[in-house]
Amino acid sequence: MKKIAILGSTGSIGTQTLEIVNRFPEIEVVALAAKENIDLLEAQVRRYKPSLVAMGNPDKALELKQRLADMEVTVSGGMDGLVEVATAAEAQTVVTAVVGMIGIRPTLEAIKAGKDIALANKETLVCAGHLIMPLAKEKGVRILPVDSEHSAIFQALQGNSQKAVEKLWLTASGGPFLGKREEELLSVKPADALKHPNWTMGQKITIDSATMVNKGLEVMEARWLFDIDIDRVKVVVQPKSVIHSMVEYIDGSVIAQLGTPDMKMPIQYALFYPERRELPGERLDFKRIRSLDFRAPDMDTFYGLKLAYIAGRRGGSLPTVYNAANEKAVAMFLRGEVTFLEIALIIEDCLLHHKVIENPTLEEILETEQAVYARIESRR
Amino acid sequence: MKKIAILGSTGSIGTQTLEIVNRFPEIEVVALAAKENIDLLEAQVRRYKPSLVAMGNPDKALELKQRLADMEVTVSGGMDGLVEVATAAEAQTVVTAVVGMIGIRPTLEAIKAGKDIALANKETLVCAGHLIMPLAKEKGVRILPVDSEHSAIFQALQGNSQKAVEKLWLTASGGPFLGKREEELLSVKPADALKHPNWTMGQKITIDSATMVNKGLEVMEARWLFDIDIDRVKVVVQPKSVIHSMVEYIDGSVIAQLGTPDMKMPIQYALFYPERRELPGERLDFKRIRSLDFRAPDMDTFYGLKLAYIAGRRGGSLPTVYNAANEKAVAMFLRGEVTFLEIALIIEDCLLHHKVIENPTLEEILETEQAVYARIESRR
Repeated sequence: MKKIAILGSTGSIGTQTLEIVNRFPEIEVVALAAKENIDLLEAQVRRYKPSLVAMGNPDKALELKQRLADMEVTVSGGMDGLVEVATAAEAQTVVTAVVGMIGIRPTLEAIKAGKDIALANKETLVCAGHLIMPLAKEKGVRILPVDSEHSAIFQALQGNSQKAVEKLWLTASGGPFLGKREEELLSVKPADALKHPNWTMGQKITIDSATMVNKGLEVMEARWLFDIDIDRVKVVVQPKSVIHSMVEYIDGSVIAQLGTPDMKMPIQYALFYPERRELPGERLDFKRIRSLDFRAPDMDTFYGLKLAYIAGRRGGSLPTVYNAANEKAVAMFLRGEVTFLEIALIIEDCLLHHKVIENPTLEEILETEQAVYARIESRR
Repeated sequence: MKKIAILGSTGSIGTQTLEIVNRFPEIEVVALAAKENIDLLEAQVRRYKPSLVAMGNPDKALELKQRLADMEVTVSGGMDGLVEVATAAEAQTVVTAVVGMIGIRPTLEAIKAGKDIALANKETLVCAGHLIMPLAKEKGVRILPVDSEHSAIFQALQGNSQKAVEKLWLTASGGPFLGKREEELLSVKPADALKHPNWTMGQKITIDSATMVNKGLEVMEARWLFDIDIDRVKVVVQPKSVIHSMVEYIDGSVIAQLGTPDMKMPIQYALFYPERRELPGERLDFKRIRSLDFRAPDMDTFYGLKLAYIAGRRGGSLPTVYNAANEKAVAMFLRGEVTFLEIALIIEDCLLHHKVIENPTLEEILETEQAVYARIESRR
């Protein structure tokens, strides 16, 4: 029996994790947490019968407690609730699928409690990789990547030693604006940016894909996850997203992982690692794919990607600035308050006006986030 | 110190193996064997100072013995000599790079003597996989593939269990006649068929690539090497030969190995497995590759490939018939005695007129080879 807790069970990764649970009676869900989708979380509790459930929103937690009065389940709220779920005594693996920096603290606590982490929260490593990875090593805990690119690299690393790695190749679809020049992106509307060619995802990550900031965040994540110099993490554009990412070794051999755009594959791999289990669904059909194209990313037009290397290379609190500024800028873009190209310029402005904190604590990371938000607010 | 013996040291794989030895002082060459290139073999003995050397041609062995009178080296000849080299007491790994069925017996003897095999001799598994693989298992010996496609699959299998494998995808360049229809191949000359688009190889294997019989032999090899039903070994044409081959797993994930067309990579991987060592040389440049195309193989025009599945599925002595008939037919084609399309028809004729021997012994395999040669001779 494999016992898991899910942080962010009502989101895209959370619900797909539960779809996998449905197919494997040997996985037991012992704790669930969500931000505020109370109806879905209630239904999940009734179906999966965890002993513990939490809602990020404390008011909703109270309401959920009333709704679940007939069930034997502990209901908690707020950050304390998330941490309780992340450290639930029975859980062996915690799936961290919450969005945003709110995921960092519960992940740290889960690691301290000795849980393996199926990591789907980008911010954890981008902002706190310097805290997470040494702690995981100390506690003998596995950090198992759940997103498509890092899972691909993780799969491509199997059976090889760290010292044999020359480079990591993160593939990028290039998003809906691939091949466009800056002047063509001046008047881009949110609706245009929300049309991703290959994957169906949330709004924020779809915009991040259009700006390539998403790839920048992944570069910073890879740096920590695979303990490699950021300049050995390369990006190559492969528009059909068939190759999910690659590892280049010191003998010139390149191992790539390919697949259909189905997030259940990396989720399931993380849950059963190092084993693979059957996963029904569409298979790659090479005759239908016909051709795969490669090109270098255009870091002038997609300036947000270049900024990620700058922020990641400098490190400290700068990746947090990058992430927070982007978060705010994307929200403003979606509300029509700034243009598409301004997203990168807002990030740049925040990076340039931040005094870097070396090895920031979690508190300093969260303070940095707030300071960035405040700066952007003050300049509107 | 890693001690190796090389069968076929003067050929393409043999000399490239020695180029690798030149870069690694920790590899010691303890025995060498070649067919008849006495000048090169003499030079190799003087340089690498093995304690044992053999020539397939017994007359040449005598001459070599005289030439090497000043050296402390045992010189042997004929099949006995090859077997002595394959079983040289000090050797841990035997590189079997001889061409043809002559490689089978020394490989069997090397396995019996507990040597790991770096296998570059196709005929060993095509004709005698049913003898080789159970023996290797019994002796706890590794069969490490040295050709590009099987090494790719072997690399793509690392860190995964056999039961997680769904399919193997052998990639094929398609050779110089890719996309041609049968009527366009009626008047093909040996010179046309010898123009391989990606790899520089010997004449026989280049013609086998043009007919796709080479891929057929690889399908039969893969069936034994990876212990998989032949119908789960698929061929996909990928003209640039950048993807060397792939493994599809039961969760839909596909792991591919990519590289430049440099045989030193799989040779070196086999020598140091499971480690990787640095290998200088060209690296894949995705921007320069620009695009990879895929298509299904045309088994009507390249009928030799279809015949490989038929022979391999039936098994027994039939793969030996396939291989021997092809060997003879290619030699006749190179001499201008038969047309390009007749190569497959000669194979078909021999397959149809052979009474299959189940689980043939080595003697029966060699008798089958002779019977096939005799049949083809008798019908000229």
